[in-house]
Amino acid sequence: MRTVEEITNTIRTGLGEFPCDLKLSNVKLVNVFSREIYETDIYIKGKRIISIEPGINLESKQVIDCRGQYAMPGLIDAHMHFETTMLSPEALSNIVVPSGTLTLCADLMEIANVAGEDGLRAMISNIENLPLRLLLEVPSRVPTAPGLETTGAILGPDEVRKIMQWPEAISLGELDPSKILFVKTEYIQKVSETLAKRKIVNGHAIGRMGQELNVYASSGISDDHETVTVEEMIARLRVGMKVFIREGSTERNLDALVAGALKYHCNPDNVRFCTDDKHPNEIAEEGHISYNVRRAQELGMDPVDAVRIATINAAKHFRLEDEFGSVTPGRLADILIVPDISEMKPSMVFFEGRLVAQDGRMVRKTEVPVYPDWIKDTVHLKHPVTADSFRLKAKNAGDEAVVRVIDMIDRQIINKCLVHKVPVRDGYLERDLSDDVLKLAVVERYGKTGGVGVGFVRGFGLQNGALAFSTSHDHHNIVVIGVDDESMSVAVNEIARIHGGCSVAKDGQVVASMPLVLGGLMSDKDADVVMKEISDLNEAASSLGCPMQAPFMALSFISLPTVPELGLTDMGLIDVLNHKLIEVEV
Amino acid sequence: MRTVEEITNTIRTGLGEFPCDLKLSNVKLVNVFSREIYETDIYIKGKRIISIEPGINLESKQVIDCRGQYAMPGLIDAHMHFETTMLSPEALSNIVVPSGTLTLCADLMEIANVAGEDGLRAMISNIENLPLRLLLEVPSRVPTAPGLETTGAILGPDEVRKIMQWPEAISLGELDPSKILFVKTEYIQKVSETLAKRKIVNGHAIGRMGQELNVYASSGISDDHETVTVEEMIARLRVGMKVFIREGSTERNLDALVAGALKYHCNPDNVRFCTDDKHPNEIAEEGHISYNVRRAQELGMDPVDAVRIATINAAKHFRLEDEFGSVTPGRLADILIVPDISEMKPSMVFFEGRLVAQDGRMVRKTEVPVYPDWIKDTVHLKHPVTADSFRLKAKNAGDEAVVRVIDMIDRQIINKCLVHKVPVRDGYLERDLSDDVLKLAVVERYGKTGGVGVGFVRGFGLQNGALAFSTSHDHHNIVVIGVDDESMSVAVNEIARIHGGCSVAKDGQVVASMPLVLGGLMSDKDADVVMKEISDLNEAASSLGCPMQAPFMALSFISLPTVPELGLTDMGLIDVLNHKLIEVEV
Repeated sequence: MRTVEEITNTIRTGLGEFPCDLKLSNVKLVNVFSREIYETDIYIKGKRIISIEPGINLESKQVIDCRGQYAMPGLIDAHMHFETTMLSPEALSNIVVPSGTLTLCADLMEIANVAGEDGLRAMISNIENLPLRLLLEVPSRVPTAPGLETTGAILGPDEVRKIMQWPEAISLGELDPSKILFVKTEYIQKVSETLAKRKIVNGHAIGRMGQELNVYASSGISDDHETVTVEEMIARLRVGMKVFIREGSTERNLDALVAGALKYHCNPDNVRFCTDDKHPNEIAEEGHISYNVRRAQELGMDPVDAVRIATINAAKHFRLEDEFGSVTPGRLADILIVPDISEMKPSMVFFEGRLVAQDGRMVRKTEVPVYPDWIKDTVHLKHPVTADSFRLKAKNAGDEAVVRVIDMIDRQIINKCLVHKVPVRDGYLERDLSDDVLKLAVVERYGKTGGVGVGFVRGFGLQNGALAFSTSHDHHNIVVIGVDDESMSVAVNEIARIHGGCSVAKDGQVVASMPLVLGGLMSDKDADVVMKEISDLNEAASSLGCPMQAPFMALSFISLPTVPELGLTDMGLIDVLNHKLIEVEV
Repeated sequence: MRTVEEITNTIRTGLGEFPCDLKLSNVKLVNVFSREIYETDIYIKGKRIISIEPGINLESKQVIDCRGQYAMPGLIDAHMHFETTMLSPEALSNIVVPSGTLTLCADLMEIANVAGEDGLRAMISNIENLPLRLLLEVPSRVPTAPGLETTGAILGPDEVRKIMQWPEAISLGELDPSKILFVKTEYIQKVSETLAKRKIVNGHAIGRMGQELNVYASSGISDDHETVTVEEMIARLRVGMKVFIREGSTERNLDALVAGALKYHCNPDNVRFCTDDKHPNEIAEEGHISYNVRRAQELGMDPVDAVRIATINAAKHFRLEDEFGSVTPGRLADILIVPDISEMKPSMVFFEGRLVAQDGRMVRKTEVPVYPDWIKDTVHLKHPVTADSFRLKAKNAGDEAVVRVIDMIDRQIINKCLVHKVPVRDGYLERDLSDDVLKLAVVERYGKTGGVGVGFVRGFGLQNGALAFSTSHDHHNIVVIGVDDESMSVAVNEIARIHGGCSVAKDGQVVASMPLVLGGLMSDKDADVVMKEISDLNEAASSLGCPMQAPFMALSFISLPTVPELGLTDMGLIDVLNHKLIEVEV
């Protein structure tokens, strides 16, 4: 990582042989190593910190008087996904960097399911031009539900072994407990490969406690970001797992966990912060990891501890504390200048020694580069769908049938199985608008099988038309709900036409659509454009009677084949607990 | 490290598919991750911990009722050298294991200076049979003073790159600050190679403060074990270096640093324990790292913090916390059962699931294996020495001359330059017994040059005879002091005869000697034999008038060419600060 030339240059500059590039004078340094705040100056040469020694005087080409403001390390998001922001790394960086986040530990599992190793490489191909550090939690579940879904690519143990050698690869991403508890050898191979490289395995211990949690931890899992209660936090710390306190858009765990940590004197050194999934508009409104640091202080946490959790703790976790996570000599100069530590609104943000943001704005907006054509062309229907694609034949004669319905629990990623009566017309099962039971379908979009899985869903409140989306966890085929089959087909075909994204159809016509051309998951446009497009799309959905705030987010999770109890894929309805296909009719 | 089979076996055992091998029931678990002590049971299968969940009931082949005793992780010595104990890893393990030390992070720089990569490999060749874990801090300075000393081997950047890939290699060992501050490219290459492997670089920041310390840290150094005062400790933590609190035989830094850490609320997470050099008799008397834990508590440290510093903190430092350092599921079952946490005397010691010591005694003594013949044959004089070998011709006529004398500061590794008048007889410089100024010589012993460096020393108090030793830091030629040249030659030739070790001569006759056949540094005998031999030898030295408690230890450090101000090698007298040869006569 650090070449002989780079180390030599750092040493010689510190010895006074060359001038520094930058002196940040008169700062209150938040020293996350010594756990102190004290007055000093910071000297920087190139990308590296040369000295933080108080009272010395090194020559420097540029001096910025920080007038007693705080200086602290750049913030680290220990676990997040890009794809749910719908933004490219470049567009996302423009909104997170001004808030002080300078390292994203990203599990790019969505693009990996679409385009495998090539997809990962494409997303990090412009990494050198980013005003932040993008590190890779190598996706562990590509696919998530092998044998029950069609994905664009597969990352088996061999691929994981290979990708784990990339310099950006820091860990194996959020390994599902069922893979351990059901002793799936393929996933254990991935764990073994990762540990052999002395990298770590990220967990995903949702709800697990007791002996199950012990077994999960015993397989080599280092952490959990699905911790919701203080009891769960203590249980995870006890089995040697570190806790990532997650504060995203829908999953907001910070208040409970920070309050609990303070109450029970949990060791802050085993805690980190992450967002997992946080929407651009909320980042713009309240900040990113900066929000976590601010909110933790409001809950009574010591400011230095809050900053440590957001910086050095994550760097140590990923075994990179010699490179970043603290403002100490030799580390990369990721530095925030902050007028008020309780507010956490940086007046200046330096990434690797370079001023990248000032007073909440990028110094220079990061341009979204021209991505390769192939990644903008990942949505291929084997043949266009028609209304007939979504018909479900009833097993028996009669004008009613009993079916399994995926019942959405609002604002939670749990899809219950509801048994419900629906009308039968001309021998086909029909939606029941009076009870909000609509058709739900998943259309294979990799041009492989042309499969269409059809079922029922309750909870969207749509009165007419259809909504479709090419983000459908974790396989990312096209998911569609609708009141009439014709609108459903129109919505799906529109998504193919725009190479992926969201669409709204009504009365057999497209009402609105939004392209997400990068793998059918992310836009190649700026954050403000994307935020406006999402808002327009939500309005269109609302005009169809959908009362939800984020209907497409809900749509992307409603068919998940790994979350109890029911899922739906291009292959059909899934009994999640028994990991098998089942019929729609009971 | 962990094979798929091993992980699978751990999981399946935790799921109850196979019985555990061992249940340690009814323990008070010192949980170093969650920073708690609570009652539970520990389940073990093979080398691994399966579960620590309270109140569950897994089948187990063996159950040991621990009756409420404490259970804690095996202790870790974060930095030590074998060679100064004069014991082989096997013999040392027999005395440290009963006290609870189960991991030794060893910088085997002495054997590396004698025999290079082969020497390192020979010392760890029986690692599988040890009742403890031996990890390698790859020696960074082989040689320490290039161009000024003859060594048996050289480890350049290429060798370091190669050795750093061994599974036992965890770091680059104690890199001397002068190598950084004088920008020695060869050593910077070693740093770069180590960081590229995501391993760490151990420091040796003796006395450095201010900007020098900043420069040293900026080169990628992770830690320091030469910290003596609390001011130094805070300075190191501030520049992002972790502090190893050293409590050895001569260097006893624990009281000052622990008291200081408590007074200034230093973050215990950035602190570890080490011994550096601790003599067998003191280990036997007061314990090893267990002494550090006990003493820290006496000074007021929280018991769990003291145990954490001795266990998980070191494991995290070397990025191996997924393997050991805590009693948590999946980790190697290094477990101490301790009746009284303030006493730290284990009633049972388990290494990787196996009971290895009980009530202060090894269950089965580790036999010292048959080492290869070549490692017992490393002392080769190019030609036997005679009294003439130690004659120093005076520059001018007259019966007095002014010479530079290495002045020993008692119990400190600092060798001052004293300017002193000595008699001249027949044109040769003579010792001055009245002022305790004796001859000191270093005789090349690798059969390469036959060089003999001769100078003067003060502080040994010898009244007649000579003492010689084939441990002479860090080149390990034969160092000898004496009242008469004849006895000096006899003492040196005796060491060649016994293939390395210590000798005492008087009136031209050998009075006592002790073989250290492993590289001329370590004995291949048991600890009790070696302790008796040392004691006999010290008695013989005492009979020559030497009042020192450990004269051979002093002898091994007196000629060091890297410790200010004067050194002596087989090439001659060394001006340490200017890193060059100088004349004895002023």
